[in-house]
Amino acid sequence: GGRPTISSEDGMYAMSIGLAFHEDIGGFMGMSPRRGETKGDYEGLTENARRLRIPISFRYKNWIANITPDFGSSTADGSATLYEANLNYAGFRNTVITAGYFQPRVTEEDSESSNEFEMMERPAITDIVRNIAAGDARMSFGALHYAKRWWIAGYVTGQSYGKRATYDSQSGATFRVAGRPYVSKDIDVHVGLSAITAFKVAQGTGSSDRSYTFAEQPEVDLTTTKLLSATVGNVGSIWSAGPELGFRWKRLVLKGEYYNIGVTRGDYGASTASNTANVNFTGYYGAANYTIFGKARSYNIKEGAFAAPGVDHAFDPSHGYWGALEMSARYSVTDLNANLGNAATALRGGQQTVWSAGLNWYPNRHFRFMLDFNHFIVSRNSVAADVMGREGNSVAGRIQAAF
Amino acid sequence: GGRPTISSEDGMYAMSIGLAFHEDIGGFMGMSPRRGETKGDYEGLTENARRLRIPISFRYKNWIANITPDFGSSTADGSATLYEANLNYAGFRNTVITAGYFQPRVTEEDSESSNEFEMMERPAITDIVRNIAAGDARMSFGALHYAKRWWIAGYVTGQSYGKRATYDSQSGATFRVAGRPYVSKDIDVHVGLSAITAFKVAQGTGSSDRSYTFAEQPEVDLTTTKLLSATVGNVGSIWSAGPELGFRWKRLVLKGEYYNIGVTRGDYGASTASNTANVNFTGYYGAANYTIFGKARSYNIKEGAFAAPGVDHAFDPSHGYWGALEMSARYSVTDLNANLGNAATALRGGQQTVWSAGLNWYPNRHFRFMLDFNHFIVSRNSVAADVMGREGNSVAGRIQAAF
Amino acid sequence: GGRPTISSEDGMYAMSIGLAFHEDIGGFMGMSPRRGETKGDYEGLTENARRLRIPISFRYKNWIANITPDFGSSTADGSATLYEANLNYAGFRNTVITAGYFQPRVTEEDSESSNEFEMMERPAITDIVRNIAAGDARMSFGALHYAKRWWIAGYVTGQSYGKRATYDSQSGATFRVAGRPYVSKDIDVHVGLSAITAFKVAQGTGSSDRSYTFAEQPEVDLTTTKLLSATVGNVGSIWSAGPELGFRWKRLVLKGEYYNIGVTRGDYGASTASNTANVNFTGYYGAANYTIFGKARSYNIKEGAFAAPGVDHAFDPSHGYWGALEMSARYSVTDLNANLGNAATALRGGQQTVWSAGLNWYPNRHFRFMLDFNHFIVSRNSVAADVMGREGNSVAGRIQAAF
Repeated sequence: GGRPTISSEDGMYAMSIGLAFHEDIGGFMGMSPRRGETKGDYEGLTENARRLRIPISFRYKNWIANITPDFGSSTADGSATLYEANLNYAGFRNTVITAGYFQPRVTEEDSESSNEFEMMERPAITDIVRNIAAGDARMSFGALHYAKRWWIAGYVTGQSYGKRATYDSQSGATFRVAGRPYVSKDIDVHVGLSAITAFKVAQGTGSSDRSYTFAEQPEVDLTTTKLLSATVGNVGSIWSAGPELGFRWKRLVLKGEYYNIGVTRGDYGASTASNTANVNFTGYYGAANYTIFGKARSYNIKEGAFAAPGVDHAFDPSHGYWGALEMSARYSVTDLNANLGNAATALRGGQQTVWSAGLNWYPNRHFRFMLDFNHFIVSRNSVAADVMGREGNSVAGRIQAAF
Repeated sequence: GGRPTISSEDGMYAMSIGLAFHEDIGGFMGMSPRRGETKGDYEGLTENARRLRIPISFRYKNWIANITPDFGSSTADGSATLYEANLNYAGFRNTVITAGYFQPRVTEEDSESSNEFEMMERPAITDIVRNIAAGDARMSFGALHYAKRWWIAGYVTGQSYGKRATYDSQSGATFRVAGRPYVSKDIDVHVGLSAITAFKVAQGTGSSDRSYTFAEQPEVDLTTTKLLSATVGNVGSIWSAGPELGFRWKRLVLKGEYYNIGVTRGDYGASTASNTANVNFTGYYGAANYTIFGKARSYNIKEGAFAAPGVDHAFDPSHGYWGALEMSARYSVTDLNANLGNAATALRGGQQTVWSAGLNWYPNRHFRFMLDFNHFIVSRNSVAADVMGREGNSVAGRIQAAF
Repeated sequence: GGRPTISSEDGMYAMSIGLAFHEDIGGFMGMSPRRGETKGDYEGLTENARRLRIPISFRYKNWIANITPDFGSSTADGSATLYEANLNYAGFRNTVITAGYFQPRVTEEDSESSNEFEMMERPAITDIVRNIAAGDARMSFGALHYAKRWWIAGYVTGQSYGKRATYDSQSGATFRVAGRPYVSKDIDVHVGLSAITAFKVAQGTGSSDRSYTFAEQPEVDLTTTKLLSATVGNVGSIWSAGPELGFRWKRLVLKGEYYNIGVTRGDYGASTASNTANVNFTGYYGAANYTIFGKARSYNIKEGAFAAPGVDHAFDPSHGYWGALEMSARYSVTDLNANLGNAATALRGGQQTVWSAGLNWYPNRHFRFMLDFNHFIVSRNSVAADVMGREGNSVAGRIQAAF
């Protein structure tokens, strides 16, 4: 796959060093706050070191150790951290058993490599769901198995790297199954089901009132201000599940997912309605992608998800080679309002709708340039920058290299 | 040794990349604090990225530059730091001259590679002694020399990486000599002497009252709370020395070390008894290890210390190969109480006793799984979680890869 | 060049891993503060992990991705950060187009690799000028082109890695052109012009009073205290420009540069004289370098700057080979006082004069040892350690490896 690798002559040893390089530049427009709202971190032009990962892999026979330093950041322009560090046993056919800091995959969007995303960021609901008990550098133990027509994986998970809670750490689990009921040269049909749960959430303070915050940026990570945000107190457990659907017809890929999130309550504090009511959130998205030139998107059976377009001939205008170009559009809704009809139990985290469109150009198989436009509308909640509801636009570009 | 290396054809250049991957999972049991004590960070189940080191080495002729990023942490589940970064001259036979951030070795336990430890952690006294002026990423200048029957090294040392004191940095020195008075196929006898000193300790505040804190976890690093802790004020210098003894008979290895620590006092503040009395601490341990199957532990003359069991045939149950398995037991005492018989000069840091037992399985020469049980008893001192004395148990496992 | 590289057989792929290892040890002497001044962080003996960079480069055809983790620090003995992370297109002859976190080069001193500096640190004026809108890990987009007799480059620049301002990020640009009007075997004449500007400086607080601080250590980085410091409020834009001159005659290299810095004011606050007056600072240096033995310094056309001495035969006293040795001397003045003749608009940042001398020994082409002596005089300003004016001396050594 183009990742630099050195191997021993007997094939017992291999070591490889790769790169996932994503740097973003862009800004926000038309975001005047309404009276009483703060502006928030919505700059007209700024940059973000989104992902700067150096995956290093050591293999001895069927045993593999991976470690991936990451100098990127989801929002704040860079810090030195870890994307993963895990041990794997690949001695069973098409199966990988993993222990250590890992990104267990849930949802179709999260199962795609970030090097191959249609848009710069996942839909908000996908990020919120995966962060419950999966996400980057999550301590995990489990396995995945794939075949030509189906894919399955399950993990028990703990805290994320560097995020041990002082009083009690999180425990959770993930599960995903996906299949391909119909496959032909021109058509791929994908169906899947993802589920995730935090049996207990972390307790970071002396109080045993465990709370959890669901929050997300408007599907562009050039800001540290999250307009969409719901904090639930006295959390017992969190679970989420939902279906995945995908369809490819020649150069066109259509995808959609829907997730429901439920929060059961704990036994801390008074037994009031607001403290004991179950909380439910929902979100979904639909996306369309079309490969204008180059090799169309295809299905990756190892991921149970769609992969990026291919480049037959690297960029070389003198020979008429332009790489690959695709365009994407997405409609995404995430609703963190719950029980609004009941004053005693209402929880208003806001509802965020994002319309987005983007273009991706691949001059060759290792480099990519992305351009995304987002229009987002967030209904009011308690965030200082969103007490009256807020809408706005963003334009962002990404330079990417992947080895 | 299995570390991926590339070399120039003329042999003048070599570059290698390795890995020391240690991730721990486990927790504490039966640790109810007595009345008046805080609970401390003693979780039932948590994780720790103990060591995630990527040693990178560049050689040109006899000159070697080493740099080892580390994404692990002794207690707090991970951070990006440095294990070492030093220059070496290896032009004299069996001798390495080193300058830069380094881990100068003192004590037999500290001289073993952490990839080869009998138990997951060193005895508390070893960690306390080595931290005086050695430990990881300590600025050092010195040399080691080894022969078939003896080993010697000495270094002058400064601050640890990233720990410059604002007002005055530490200066110190280390010395270790070890020998093998009797060697046969079935028997190794190891004797040694280690010594370490901080001529002056760091001054981090405007006050010239230099203090130093001796503290340690209960030989399991899944907590940030150290029950054993003694802070000495008005420190002039610190020194420590003690004997090392080791004995191998076939598959059995017995080891023991004893260290005395002395603190001389400085000239800050009033000349009171508590401010001027010399302070002495002691500690020791005894350990037994038996290799159940696989190649027994052996003696490493380059380290002047015992090395891990070997694996003749990598894990392959279909051929009846199971790697190597060993078991260990250790009794360890660290006494940070001083002058208890004299009310004017008494210093009560507590005495910690740890009983531990463990099993290590090596499926092949690069991977290892450890399981340790500790029972610890700490007498009272001034730590909030230990004002009445405390005892408890821990069970912890480690997944390890080393290249 | 001795950097370990692996390539594919068809030449389309290459990956390399290098090292820039600079560790400093030394201290300050004769620095008693005058009455009313604090001592500052001027230790008699301390260490600094100055640069610990691991440059990793991936090439596919004419496209190159660079990423360089850095565990060094300019002053505080180490932290994990990034030196660069950028994408490059090298498909045009002698031209490199770059986007991403980069060090765009301005001034002759900054154009030299830090592995090849005459002294351990750049002259203060060079650091102050380059930090306006260049410096390490600055988000940049631009290109450089070089030929045998000239060199030109220009970049637009944004924030430095990890330094996004909460309210508005910086925008700027750099430009440098250099030429060689006369070249012969014994003589190199270098002339150049560098310019740099911050169109707008960062706004980090809610107030739109954008301020910028010019500050620098006394050309030795073993301290966090900067005696030279001027903070300008209500900044509109900053610009700087100046000439570069260099001359080599056989083994002797003479260099000098002069820079003027101008600050235009913004429209925040009352229109008072102190708030609206233009501010101008200046600085210059002159340096002489002589190669005592080994291959003399030469001109590097890819950098448009002078390169370090070469080593014909690596250190090998038994054959009479001693590597290379050079000595340097420098006189440097940086004046951050402005409008001192006018009480209403005066801005007193101090004037720093540094006399320095140094010796560099190269046992071979990859290793270097430096020894620098500085005497510095700083006139009074508002820094707590310099309210009466201050002078002092430093002695510092560096161990270096470069691959």
